[in-house]
Parts: sequence; structure tokens; C-alpha cells
Amino acid sequence: MNTGSNQTEPKRRGRRAGGEDTKAALLAAAREIFVERGYEGATVRSIASRAGVDAAMVNHWFGGKEALFAKAVLQVPVDINALVDRILDGPDDEIGERIVRNFIGIWDPIGGGQFAAMVRSVTSHDQVAEVLRGFFVGTLLKRVVAHLAVADGELRATLVASQIFGMGMVRYVVRFEPLASADVETMVKAIAPNLQRYLTGDLG
Amino acid sequence: MNTGSNQTEPKRRGRRAGGEDTKAALLAAAREIFVERGYEGATVRSIASRAGVDAAMVNHWFGGKEALFAKAVLQVPVDINALVDRILDGPDDEIGERIVRNFIGIWDPIGGGQFAAMVRSVTSHDQVAEVLRGFFVGTLLKRVVAHLAVADGELRATLVASQIFGMGMVRYVVRFEPLASADVETMVKAIAPNLQRYLTGDLG
Repeated sequence: MNTGSNQTEPKRRGRRAGGEDTKAALLAAAREIFVERGYEGATVRSIASRAGVDAAMVNHWFGGKEALFAKAVLQVPVDINALVDRILDGPDDEIGERIVRNFIGIWDPIGGGQFAAMVRSVTSHDQVAEVLRGFFVGTLLKRVVAHLAVADGELRATLVASQIFGMGMVRYVVRFEPLASADVETMVKAIAPNLQRYLTGDLG
Repeated sequence: MNTGSNQTEPKRRGRRAGGEDTKAALLAAAREIFVERGYEGATVRSIASRAGVDAAMVNHWFGGKEALFAKAVLQVPVDINALVDRILDGPDDEIGERIVRNFIGIWDPIGGGQFAAMVRSVTSHDQVAEVLRGFFVGTLLKRVVAHLAVADGELRATLVASQIFGMGMVRYVVRFEPLASADVETMVKAIAPNLQRYLTGDLG
């Protein structure tokens, strides 16, 4: 993966009227840089430089690299770092429940079209899958594994990812009923214990 | 959904040299008819008629409507009806294990590109998602629910679908490690108990 450490950024400096211009420029630059360099290789500074704005603008408008990635690549207006904080904060034996509540809380209002668009993007472009993989390994997986401090942390995290991905596919894309219309409490009761087993249970 | 009961099929009769022609014509006709009429509305007779061949050719070359659907729409060379037979045949408390073994046994040799293509097709075309939904509800779901005779059979079947879909996404499309390269026994130990809970366990 190209880390781009010695590359010169094309400058696109110029007067920008307001915040919307800056945000749009940062999103466009982020999509380019993430795909070019992977999640780990993309730096806030390189993205800001390509957008022609100061690096402080990334934190100002998005709160950091994770949130910029979420908005630019996943197209979800969520600060992933803050989301992981919310999920890990609380009793460990209720992490599964917090994952289901947060996932549905984020995606139900956004709607299935956008989830389908995200999956389509991942299945159509190997680079997007690669960026997502880098993001998952470098951020989500590391934090969950460090927090739980259990054996097979990496396998556990990928198992959780599999159930979450599939829940999104069935609820928002292929819309198999009754799961697609099930209320949050039904979803939590059905799915949270399975996630919990992946996270802290006996995997055999 | 259009059942097409009163429609006249365009005839494309003509001499066909061998079996490959007939198979190709049936696959093309099947894709059209399944998308036009949905899974339930598509009949073997209407597909054969559009392909310009005798309906007996469907059974001869594919074994039936389910297998033709699998090959034409899912692009998997599997007789789904026979697959469900294999999964349901045996102790009920090992259905989860048989699902994992069969799924991996089918998809590992085919490879991730084809799974990605199937998911891309489902996420890109509402009609394909609709056909898949009809197939799932009309075939898989009905058979599993009838076999298990448990409460909430429909919800259970869709929960299983969510885990299976997600397993395919993580193993073949985004390829998160170590799940993507885990051997069959690791996958069975990790995932089968979760499927089993969806099928026969307490959903709360």
C-alpha cells in the first residue's frame, strides 16, 4: 500500500466563501486519499493539503480522521470513534446489546438505500473494500480487542462484523420479513446474545 | 406481483444443435421471467416457452425451478431444493453446523468474486432483491419453518439468513482476517452455535 510519505500534494488553495465549501472540498479530497493510500496511509494533513485548507479544519468540521472516513467513504454522518466509545462504555456483558441499539439507531433513520449504496460501493471497487478492511483492522478491531483482552480477539471482532453486515443486508437491502420491520427490542433480544457470545463467550 | 397467467409467451423456437444451446436459452429466459414475475409467479412452463424448448428440458438440465433459479439468478451451480434436503436431514440440533459446512463447501471453491457479483446484483437492482425475497419466503423459509415447527419460525429463518449473508460478505467480499481464511472447523465451532440458537433456541 502506498503510504505517500514523500509525495507532494497538489495544492488547490483559493478563497473559500464558507464552511460548506471547505467541508465539500475535504470530503472529495478524503475519498481520493483514502482510496489511494488506504486507511492507515491517509493522514489528516495530506487530506487537508489536497483540499487546500488547514489541517485544523478536519477536526473543526468532522472531529477527526475516523469521522471524516465515515462521512466520505461509508457515507454515514457518524463519528466512529465516539460510537465505539459509546459501545464499549458500560458492562462488558451488554456490549452486544449496545451494538444492536447503536447500529439500528444510526441506520434506521438513514434508510436502506444508503446502506445498499455502501454495500454496492464495497462490492464494486476492490479499493473501497481494501480501505474498509484497513479501517476495520486499524481502528475498530484494535480497540475492541484491547478493551476485551480475551483470546482470539481478532476472530471475535470479525465474527461480530459478519453478523452486523448481514443484519444490515437483510433489514435494509433484501428486506426479508419479519426481520426487516422488527422493532428494536425484538432485534436486541434476538441478536444481542449472539453478538455477546462472539465477543465474550466460548467459541469452542 | 404480475403472475403473467394470461400472457402469451414470445416464441423463439428453432433448431438447437445440442444441450449447451438449450441450457443457455433456458438461463437467459429464466433471468427474464424471474425478474418480470417474481419467484412465485415464474413457472417452469413459461420459462421453457420463452426459451423455445419443452418444459421437460428444465428438469432434464437443471432438476427443477429452484436449481434453475440458483444458476440463473444467484449464479450458483447448486440445486437449492437438494441443498435444503441435505441441511434438514439429520439431528435438528446440528442444523446450524450443516448450514455452515454446506455454505462454505459451496462458496469457497467458487470464490469471492462471484459472491460479490451476486451481492452487487442484489444491491443494484430492486427487482433482483424482490426475486430473492420471493424465493426466500416461498421456498427456504417455508421449508425450514415447516420442518422445525417452532414459534417465530419466520423470524428465526430471517435471522439465519442475516448471519449467512454477513458470513459471505466478510469471508468473500471485504475479507476481514482471520475470518476470511479460517478453516471450516473453526468456522463451524464459531458460527454454528449462533445459527442453532436462531433456529431452535430461546429468542427472549
